[in-house]
Amino acid sequence: MTVDEAEREARIIMSRVAEPGDVDACRLVSEHSAAALVDRLRGGHTGRSKLSDWAERIGSTRAEPLLAQAAAVNARYICPGDDDWPVQLDDLARLEFCCADRRGGAPFGLWVRGSLDGAALRSRSVAVVGARSATAYGEHVAGDLAMECAERGYVVVSGGAYGIDAAAHRGSLAADQATVAVLAGGIDRLYPSGNAALLHQIIATGLVVAEAAPACAPSKSRFLVRNRLIAALAQGTVVVEAALRSGSLNTARWARDLNRWVMGVPGPVTSRLSAGVHELLRQPESVLVTDAGEVIEQLAPVGQELAPAKSGVSTSWDGLDARSRQLLDAVPVSRPASVSSIARAAGLEQQDVTTRLHSLCAAGLVVGDEAGWRLGPA
Amino acid sequence: MTVDEAEREARIIMSRVAEPGDVDACRLVSEHSAAALVDRLRGGHTGRSKLSDWAERIGSTRAEPLLAQAAAVNARYICPGDDDWPVQLDDLARLEFCCADRRGGAPFGLWVRGSLDGAALRSRSVAVVGARSATAYGEHVAGDLAMECAERGYVVVSGGAYGIDAAAHRGSLAADQATVAVLAGGIDRLYPSGNAALLHQIIATGLVVAEAAPACAPSKSRFLVRNRLIAALAQGTVVVEAALRSGSLNTARWARDLNRWVMGVPGPVTSRLSAGVHELLRQPESVLVTDAGEVIEQLAPVGQELAPAKSGVSTSWDGLDARSRQLLDAVPVSRPASVSSIARAAGLEQQDVTTRLHSLCAAGLVVGDEAGWRLGPA
Repeated sequence: MTVDEAEREARIIMSRVAEPGDVDACRLVSEHSAAALVDRLRGGHTGRSKLSDWAERIGSTRAEPLLAQAAAVNARYICPGDDDWPVQLDDLARLEFCCADRRGGAPFGLWVRGSLDGAALRSRSVAVVGARSATAYGEHVAGDLAMECAERGYVVVSGGAYGIDAAAHRGSLAADQATVAVLAGGIDRLYPSGNAALLHQIIATGLVVAEAAPACAPSKSRFLVRNRLIAALAQGTVVVEAALRSGSLNTARWARDLNRWVMGVPGPVTSRLSAGVHELLRQPESVLVTDAGEVIEQLAPVGQELAPAKSGVSTSWDGLDARSRQLLDAVPVSRPASVSSIARAAGLEQQDVTTRLHSLCAAGLVVGDEAGWRLGPA
Repeated sequence: MTVDEAEREARIIMSRVAEPGDVDACRLVSEHSAAALVDRLRGGHTGRSKLSDWAERIGSTRAEPLLAQAAAVNARYICPGDDDWPVQLDDLARLEFCCADRRGGAPFGLWVRGSLDGAALRSRSVAVVGARSATAYGEHVAGDLAMECAERGYVVVSGGAYGIDAAAHRGSLAADQATVAVLAGGIDRLYPSGNAALLHQIIATGLVVAEAAPACAPSKSRFLVRNRLIAALAQGTVVVEAALRSGSLNTARWARDLNRWVMGVPGPVTSRLSAGVHELLRQPESVLVTDAGEVIEQLAPVGQELAPAKSGVSTSWDGLDARSRQLLDAVPVSRPASVSSIARAAGLEQQDVTTRLHSLCAAGLVVGDEAGWRLGPA
């Protein structure tokens, strides 16, 4: 399938004219086409107030200069119908009207830098997001989690921000795997600038994407709208650290609304930066995860890639029946005791105790001599 | 209702003869009576091997010396039918056969030191349990949690051990509230001896109880059986820190099997001592809690004593509609900007922007003068 070039140009123009994720713009574009919408705006048929805003803004906006701005940073524009379009973003179309206060339909297209196998992003991807002002604990956990997910073939998606996002991208890069950063502003503005070097590394092996047109500033509301793309690109979202009301919880809500997995990594209840995650984990649809194995178990098809059972420290008592354990409880550590005193202490029959002591002796769990029985080295 | 004295004496004798919680003993006592069982053991009618064990042990065991041993430490024996018998323990009778590898029927009776309003223990009680080798974090959280639960009229039940148990008892005592410690050995052995002073404090205002007869040693298997009493006494169990395979998880399983609430306090995923709690919290029947308010919300009747919604830091932007926030995003912090430049940056209509700027100005969120508009002090 090839994309009609006039339609592509119209989408590019609309990425400049409408706010990213604007529900009305998304709906008009998907129901009619961007080309029809641009024609209508240019033709002055602008009954509704939002349309007249756009008509005022569209002026002489053309695709070519925007493409040139993008090309200056080796960015290009992709949209539905392109081979590398992440079709999972189209799931957002279903949500356009679900929440009055949350904007965000399916994007018309994306500005992208870098390259990535779209199939991998569709079939094995996980968003790892969290607080900007993360703690050392949060960054450590996010980095490890992302690295192990990446090592097992998962594409880590995040927002390129300081803190948890950066730790997640770095973890993925440390595993030599492609990672995806979704920007809130224009593709030519690697925001925050302190992460410019990291974002360049991401571009070299993975993908940086933006919904807003080149040169657009990342504003607070654009961050919230951007979050829906992170949630929609990945099969599930893991929140590592988040204060109450953190933007990462917004990403988690998008994931939930999109019927994708919502996971959270707990932390100390005394940490303000885990309070939001704990609030999330108290909701029945979220899953507590402590490592990459548990994340992947959740994302993989049911019954596949199960996390190994956590077993703790095994002891030489494992596998003994209850009565033998009860007996061992009564065997002294150092001063040897007689069969009858052990039987009394254990509350077991003498004959049973004698038999069991000999088999426990064979296993090295007790030792016996003329002075009596005591615990063995095992 | 008064208890038949012969039956009480027989129960006292059986508390010495059978292992605490022995399922067969519990069943025989509840189906027939302790008096009938003692008669049978003394009469030599002991077909089954366990009965012959008991027959061998019962010898000349009498209630009086055991009562004297108990009286020496101001302890007494209570059993079903006594006014202060905690009837919630009888729920254990339902579970006698549910788990082959876990012993523990309803106890015949309890040795007790101290005194406590049984009604409070029935209607407002919570078990707070966890690792002996707790971290400073765990002890801090357990202490605070227990103190706040106690302040709100909850009786805190625990096992008197080092670590989380001790912190929970101390927190409750700090709130000047009665707390209950359940021992694994005899009532005259305040175990561990390092907690003897704490256990004496508990006796002074609350209750220390034991199922085993005086002088019995606390053994590993008796700790597991003891755990069922902690779970059964309380309306719900909170695990604060627990390694994988910790005994506290056994208490949580008893609580689950008894249809009581199972709660866990999360911690860092890097802490071995939170791994068991996290494993517990990954099971759908457990509830993550971060403070006493959440614990009590769980235990109280549905819809009562709800925990206040956690709101995070509120900002002066709260309550603004999405468009005003979008507008504020575009207002510069220091260098004033014109209405038209703000409207362009925000992607909003000029006239709308002008109206909104004036009302935001009235709220102190923006300030305007001849040079233009910028963010206000609020």
